[in-house]
Amino acid sequence: MRNSTRSNVDPFIVMDVMEAARQAEEAGRHIIHMEVGQPSTGAPLGARLAVAETVESDSLGYTVALGLPALRQRIAQLYGEWYDVDLDPNRVVVTSGSSAAFLLAFTSLFDTGDRVGIGAPGYPSYRQILSALGMQPVDIQTAPENRFQPVPKDLVDLNLAGLMVASPGNPTGTMLDLPAMRALIEATHAQGASFISDEIYHGIEYESKAVTALQVTNSAYIINSFSKFFSMTGWRIGWMVVPEDHVRVLERIAQNMFICAPHASQVAALAALDSEEELRENLSVYKRNRELMLKGLPEAGFTKIAPPDGAFYVYADVSELTSDSRAFAREILDQVGVAVTPGLDFDPIRGATTLRFSYARGTDDIQEGLDRLKSFMKAR
Amino acid sequence: MRNSTRSNVDPFIVMDVMEAARQAEEAGRHIIHMEVGQPSTGAPLGARLAVAETVESDSLGYTVALGLPALRQRIAQLYGEWYDVDLDPNRVVVTSGSSAAFLLAFTSLFDTGDRVGIGAPGYPSYRQILSALGMQPVDIQTAPENRFQPVPKDLVDLNLAGLMVASPGNPTGTMLDLPAMRALIEATHAQGASFISDEIYHGIEYESKAVTALQVTNSAYIINSFSKFFSMTGWRIGWMVVPEDHVRVLERIAQNMFICAPHASQVAALAALDSEEELRENLSVYKRNRELMLKGLPEAGFTKIAPPDGAFYVYADVSELTSDSRAFAREILDQVGVAVTPGLDFDPIRGATTLRFSYARGTDDIQEGLDRLKSFMKAR
Repeated sequence: MRNSTRSNVDPFIVMDVMEAARQAEEAGRHIIHMEVGQPSTGAPLGARLAVAETVESDSLGYTVALGLPALRQRIAQLYGEWYDVDLDPNRVVVTSGSSAAFLLAFTSLFDTGDRVGIGAPGYPSYRQILSALGMQPVDIQTAPENRFQPVPKDLVDLNLAGLMVASPGNPTGTMLDLPAMRALIEATHAQGASFISDEIYHGIEYESKAVTALQVTNSAYIINSFSKFFSMTGWRIGWMVVPEDHVRVLERIAQNMFICAPHASQVAALAALDSEEELRENLSVYKRNRELMLKGLPEAGFTKIAPPDGAFYVYADVSELTSDSRAFAREILDQVGVAVTPGLDFDPIRGATTLRFSYARGTDDIQEGLDRLKSFMKAR
Repeated sequence: MRNSTRSNVDPFIVMDVMEAARQAEEAGRHIIHMEVGQPSTGAPLGARLAVAETVESDSLGYTVALGLPALRQRIAQLYGEWYDVDLDPNRVVVTSGSSAAFLLAFTSLFDTGDRVGIGAPGYPSYRQILSALGMQPVDIQTAPENRFQPVPKDLVDLNLAGLMVASPGNPTGTMLDLPAMRALIEATHAQGASFISDEIYHGIEYESKAVTALQVTNSAYIINSFSKFFSMTGWRIGWMVVPEDHVRVLERIAQNMFICAPHASQVAALAALDSEEELRENLSVYKRNRELMLKGLPEAGFTKIAPPDGAFYVYADVSELTSDSRAFAREILDQVGVAVTPGLDFDPIRGATTLRFSYARGTDDIQEGLDRLKSFMKAR
């Protein structure tokens, strides 16, 4: 029984790191986790209470494919609160996390062989999902001077059917400001290509607010999630905002591919949207952690880092230290017990000389991790 | 902004029925729901309590992509309990419902343009998902004398890369017995095609136990779900059993496409597996309902019905009554307030002269529905 060609998906290299970290912990070592892409906090208390209450009384059957009307309404309201954008709730599609949103968006927009631009470095699953759907991911090598984001001239002659952009980005945390977002959307649309904006780190931003593509156009797909700012990774709940005339198409695809997003997670998400205070507290932890990182990493010797406008990552150029980020990450883990992610997951080419440090965990851990990184570098 | 060709998915006709029923209810009419494909019961109490407890203490982050080890272990144990099959837990892949399992299985096995056989009548989403993935669904017109299941001679000259079979089937509730299952698997494998067995109605069976493809071969994909027997539709949780050498491939696809199944739903599912007593009570309701249906439908005048070995559906040939099942279903709804599903969702050709009656709801509703159907037929 053979596997398909499209099933030939690259492994996540970070999984090897996580497995090595797990083994080290099993052997009694204390490991600091700077490799993880999720908050250490759980869903807000209000969200958890809402679920505990609902399971008592509600049979939690299927919801309609586009999601609970109250949740779609409340998400639309968020666009007023966050960006002063007036959004019709009918354009909101509730999804099983941003993962399902990627599957829905790509299926809705692209056909077999269609070329879809993705920034490198970037979230590895864009590439893998596109390939698994029979589409063609096109890596766009972004530049540090462009904050590791694509710019209009990158798109010339690429013959794209679509462009996928993340701001704040993973692994870099860098953002597109409004003029940069506008220029990129205009250049994409000028080519007749579709624009997809991954905004799953919105809300986790430091110096200035993240810009949504909705501030520029109604003709883009916006993807967001309750996993990061709302601290609900394992609940698998997110959403899309799509052009009005795409809603019915997405409804049909979603009915067939997913039936609906998890009902209990929809209930939790609705309550999470009103848990501002607790979420602000989480954010203040990331803020402290970020300050520690921006001071501590250069002190340790990691001086070439991208300006992390949002999210909870720092992406570091370690080309002066290694040409094998995988071995280097392993060395750090073995010698001082800090797990970090080799850049190869995010950029198959230049990732050999980069590392991603996550600061999503508690501040004590971050401080301890930085101290250990200093020892590691001093001992080299 | 245009949509892809592959996004051109047929609407569910039952959705129109449901919308018409909703409008009738809004206008104050009392409607009996024989169109629904889900139990009226919620998750077992033990499952709901487990979630209520877990949200208090656990942050419910991502699980590993293949699912919680304890859940995979417990599912493997179920194969011993239900079928006396000894199953390695490492072959179990926990999924976000059978929906995600279809996406994973098709991606793992088939490439663009690959021909995949599906029985007609059958679950409409097989066809739609295959098309949305760029694959080619091939309808196999099954015969009443074969219990509406494909048989080996149906496969001749079809040039299939795979065959998808459901036993008990939806909309018919008919099952393949062990010799029929074996013959079909052997014929499929003889063609070099992959066999996928949809077993989501297992546990809901009446005269004899459903047969799993695992009793015949270790070289098939088995898809199952907690939605039906375990009464957990909205939780979006299911599983696959796959050949040992396919596990790593599926793990990588799942990491990228889904990250993991909803964590809270995995916790609920684990507890549901030990809620035998409550689930047996649900089953005894289906049993009573089925007896009422098998007596009441012929009395009403629906005499050509498939023998429903399992699930909670009766599929009726109404060719002597109508050549437009859609209009006929609408007539039943309008005149006596019973919502039923036109066969067109399950069989684009012969479905114009068939109806699906669901008996998943409470017994009082079923009795009332049958009484109304009798009035309807008497008045014709």
